[in-house]
Amino acid sequence: MHPFSDQPAQTVAALGEQNLLRHIRRWLGSAMPAAPHGMGDDCAVLPATALPRGKRPLLTVDPVIYGEHFDDAIAPRAVGRKLLARNLSDLAAMGGRPVAAVVSLALDPRTRLDWLEAFYRGLAATARRHQTPVVGGDIATHRGGLVASLTLAGVTTSSRAVTRSGAAVGDFIAVTGVLGGSLSSGHHHAFTPRLAEGAWLAARREVSAMMDVSDGLAKDLHALVPARAKPLLFGDLIPRRKGCDLRAALTDGEDYELLFTVRGTPAAAARLAADWSRAFPRTPLTVIGRLAPASAPSAGALDLSAYHGFEHLR
Amino acid sequence: MHPFSDQPAQTVAALGEQNLLRHIRRWLGSAMPAAPHGMGDDCAVLPATALPRGKRPLLTVDPVIYGEHFDDAIAPRAVGRKLLARNLSDLAAMGGRPVAAVVSLALDPRTRLDWLEAFYRGLAATARRHQTPVVGGDIATHRGGLVASLTLAGVTTSSRAVTRSGAAVGDFIAVTGVLGGSLSSGHHHAFTPRLAEGAWLAARREVSAMMDVSDGLAKDLHALVPARAKPLLFGDLIPRRKGCDLRAALTDGEDYELLFTVRGTPAAAARLAADWSRAFPRTPLTVIGRLAPASAPSAGALDLSAYHGFEHLR
Repeated sequence: MHPFSDQPAQTVAALGEQNLLRHIRRWLGSAMPAAPHGMGDDCAVLPATALPRGKRPLLTVDPVIYGEHFDDAIAPRAVGRKLLARNLSDLAAMGGRPVAAVVSLALDPRTRLDWLEAFYRGLAATARRHQTPVVGGDIATHRGGLVASLTLAGVTTSSRAVTRSGAAVGDFIAVTGVLGGSLSSGHHHAFTPRLAEGAWLAARREVSAMMDVSDGLAKDLHALVPARAKPLLFGDLIPRRKGCDLRAALTDGEDYELLFTVRGTPAAAARLAADWSRAFPRTPLTVIGRLAPASAPSAGALDLSAYHGFEHLR
Repeated sequence: MHPFSDQPAQTVAALGEQNLLRHIRRWLGSAMPAAPHGMGDDCAVLPATALPRGKRPLLTVDPVIYGEHFDDAIAPRAVGRKLLARNLSDLAAMGGRPVAAVVSLALDPRTRLDWLEAFYRGLAATARRHQTPVVGGDIATHRGGLVASLTLAGVTTSSRAVTRSGAAVGDFIAVTGVLGGSLSSGHHHAFTPRLAEGAWLAARREVSAMMDVSDGLAKDLHALVPARAKPLLFGDLIPRRKGCDLRAALTDGEDYELLFTVRGTPAAAARLAADWSRAFPRTPLTVIGRLAPASAPSAGALDLSAYHGFEHLR
């Protein structure tokens, strides 16, 4: 659906600010608590229990932008769902769970009300599914554009946050699910963020580093590789979405799968994979390679410099 | 400064994403902690001490948008400063103090590097001044636009958050500073958020409700007025910026002053004002009216329906 209309009666400008806020409250429904825990004050006040003792607070933000992350071919309900889901995926990658979300919306006064309603209803459905109260936000005028930015506050599920920086030479490299073809398959707006999987992995001490794959494996993996190390990946091992070739699996982006490293012997990595398959029998976990010293021979391994992921700001 | 350039070498597109992130780290300097407490991971991890026992977590978000909140006449350094300061003002209005900020930037690839550098240096200076670590964010492409959205996590300075909803009939209405002329005087991008003042007021039990004035007193005040009550304001009492008439003071907006209600006798309100003037000798606190039953006579009070504040989405 095209988000804008030249029929003023169909647009947010017809409602005005106060009425629009009332509508948004209704569209969000039970996904939004009452003030001060929800919309309606200068800040949202989070419950005092939001941060359990011994857990670490997490904060992340990601937008969806008309013309970049979605277009007229994507249903507005899917746009709302994707906005929250891509932030939840970041949280999953640290082994976190959501506490609360706020949404900053910059929109043209010509934005269609039915577009906006479907957007908020999609957001609300995903928020309920993943126990993420939408506690507030802001709406501002942005002539000619539509930018929705969501900030997610969360906490770790165990005492540690799994960062990108814990990997070492010798660690195995593994990934959840299958890669590639996210745009053509519709996965990019219909995926389920790997929250349960991320929490499970964070509880395993042998998981040394983790991130989510959003710009393509070939590009994102660099963030996990420590100094004086290089990744040895094997093309035949990379799990591909049906119909995808190796290049698509390495570079398409928007996979929203978990990429992580595992410390220990081959037997330890196999044990992790076996335990995983009992916990998540329908989701593949695949060991795709290993971190080697930068000076090691690369025989048989992929030359990642031949593959480029998604480059922003070009 | 105009934020865009048609000379590719002067723009963010010339740098590319990874180089740009390195530059941003440098521009933010000590305002950004190292990962995982700063930029560079899927989420920012906040220090475990971020939320002291007995305090309430707060969350707020506000954007600055090219063409709406700023234009070519505003220095980019002032834009960065304003982005953080307007969020700090929301925190001040709850009696809060900042814990961490994340910034979501949607920008045209033609955005000038020198514009962006000055923007981040302004943001960083304000962040250092108010002890607000910038712990992360996101940068995405937005052809034709420039939207910066900042989310602020904070905590209350006392055991309570002062909301908009605590006022009752009989409470006095008071405001800090002077009102009106924010745009013409430059106050809208140079103001100091009232963090110390908000914390001081939140510690006074007689302060029953509070908010910041951003869309004009005449519009914003409604949010503090409970059901079956009406505000009686007296025009001669409204503190005006030099050169402003009453209408400007009531409707201009972007004052970023604190508007609050005080429970108790006239003597209690006078005592609060006297204590204030010792704590903040250079900042006026003015009692401008009182909350009356909706049925009470309005003799001598302002007819607020004749004054309209800033309406968004028109």
